[in-house]
Amino acid sequence: MLVSQPITVGVVGAGVIGAGWVARMALAGHHVRWFDPNPGAQPFLDRISQNAVHSWQGMDWPMSPESPVRADTLAAAVGDAELIIESVPERLVIKQATYAQIESAAPPSAIIASSTSGFKPSVLADGLINPERLIVAHPFNPVYLIPLVEIVPGIHTSDAVRDRSVELYTEVGMKPLVVRKEIDAFIADRLLEAVWREALWLVNDGIATTEEIDDAIRYGFGLRWAQMGLFETYRIAGGDGGMGAFIAQFGETLAWPWTKLMDTPELTDQLIDTIAAQSDAQSGHLSIAELERHRDDNVVAILNALATTRWGAGEVVRRNRVS
Amino acid sequence: MLVSQPITVGVVGAGVIGAGWVARMALAGHHVRWFDPNPGAQPFLDRISQNAVHSWQGMDWPMSPESPVRADTLAAAVGDAELIIESVPERLVIKQATYAQIESAAPPSAIIASSTSGFKPSVLADGLINPERLIVAHPFNPVYLIPLVEIVPGIHTSDAVRDRSVELYTEVGMKPLVVRKEIDAFIADRLLEAVWREALWLVNDGIATTEEIDDAIRYGFGLRWAQMGLFETYRIAGGDGGMGAFIAQFGETLAWPWTKLMDTPELTDQLIDTIAAQSDAQSGHLSIAELERHRDDNVVAILNALATTRWGAGEVVRRNRVS
Repeated sequence: MLVSQPITVGVVGAGVIGAGWVARMALAGHHVRWFDPNPGAQPFLDRISQNAVHSWQGMDWPMSPESPVRADTLAAAVGDAELIIESVPERLVIKQATYAQIESAAPPSAIIASSTSGFKPSVLADGLINPERLIVAHPFNPVYLIPLVEIVPGIHTSDAVRDRSVELYTEVGMKPLVVRKEIDAFIADRLLEAVWREALWLVNDGIATTEEIDDAIRYGFGLRWAQMGLFETYRIAGGDGGMGAFIAQFGETLAWPWTKLMDTPELTDQLIDTIAAQSDAQSGHLSIAELERHRDDNVVAILNALATTRWGAGEVVRRNRVS
Repeated sequence: MLVSQPITVGVVGAGVIGAGWVARMALAGHHVRWFDPNPGAQPFLDRISQNAVHSWQGMDWPMSPESPVRADTLAAAVGDAELIIESVPERLVIKQATYAQIESAAPPSAIIASSTSGFKPSVLADGLINPERLIVAHPFNPVYLIPLVEIVPGIHTSDAVRDRSVELYTEVGMKPLVVRKEIDAFIADRLLEAVWREALWLVNDGIATTEEIDDAIRYGFGLRWAQMGLFETYRIAGGDGGMGAFIAQFGETLAWPWTKLMDTPELTDQLIDTIAAQSDAQSGHLSIAELERHRDDNVVAILNALATTRWGAGEVVRRNRVS
């Protein structure tokens, strides 16, 4: 197992994100208790757990044999927890009602970490008895495999909770990125949102299909972004003059009318149908389970590949590998 | 070598992009003649060529031993060429003046392929004697390594020129993506532009540094995009309901005021200084040559890793590998 000091982790909500958390925390060696009112939650979680085991084998990470325990009630999931992970639907009223239930059952010192991809922690913490213990820890799908977790403290969050969170997520093989200022959607999803809008315009205007857009990414800049990100690759393009030279050369294009970003495409039924049909044509012959396995095998392959180079997210793999 | 039938390729302009073309076309087995009026072009091209050789060794691709030949004049570079690659600066007047020189020296049947990242081919072809032979073939840095090339025919471009271009670029180990409709900046750069704007806002507003933004990409969604792109990964997130289910779940966030994309940040001297200083802090300890080598080794590692899985740009590597 990865962790030196197992703790009890309570996970509330076991959809795609929550189930991913359960799998990662349990494999890393924590005692996990999870709660989800959906009767179909167990078989879904089993599939995600199998994906996680397969992926961790591929990364040669030591896995704890302890199984996560399903709790009959939210109170039972969080009663003894030191870390409580909230992954309920993205509705503020649902999240805040969940925090009220958590606070009535959990130790007052337990950290409440929200998986929200958009709400500011200070908004989420509004109404908590102990708002200093709420923090956002926003992961990326598949949670058992992608290293990034955005750690977003709110105005009430204590430094101790922030620091302990960084420690806990690092220990389970992740790369915590502490966000300096609260903003809606944090960092990564703001970038994703920008691309998503532009991609919708491209489909809407008949410029490209979903598959062509995916190809434009995966055969092109996606290969740079998996290792260096945006600014670092542009630094190289700027040559010995650094980023200043790059901006001098390309910055003016910012003001060109190249994008339709000034507006949001309306999600008409017709546009949704177009996207859904193009996506079906692209990969409707594969089940979601098959797509998940392809995706995971590829992420493992990339992480392992980068572990042998001097740069990139592979350092996380190296650090945790069985020696 | 990769190609079955070597042709003469003339390359006009040997900056970052042009030199990358020279290296790829020569290693693949074509007879390459290149012209650049800059006296420093030779040592720069030598460095790019060395990078390319190192990368192709890593991919186990057969390399032609024939060296590219520097021509003293533009006319000498293109006089016998079947394919002419234009990689001069992104100014319409410069490009069109270059085409006039090319047309006065080259065979009338030679294809003129522009590396422009933004201009529509129909605009570029305005004034050509044989506009049917102009096409955009937009590559991505490093050109000798990244598979994607956007093939954009203009209203004048003949089908024969489009089809021959697809054939030529496929043969040198690339993935040609034919763009259905002419738009400024095509597909990939529209997506990149969207992210670039949002990233500038994040720096401008003090939300994140250049390094933090790069980390948010390379430890997170960059690992998905190197293999599947955007829609395919969202299809998985939508579960068995496909993209329709995904949009039903997340589409509404489009209308949320999450981004500042409605506006373009002003590139003040202060913002440029901030970005340049953050980039220096991030990687000023490495030379551009060192950064190039890291980048290339990582792309090679990723492509090789994906070549052993059932998905991703690695198929290009597999196809061309020495058997």
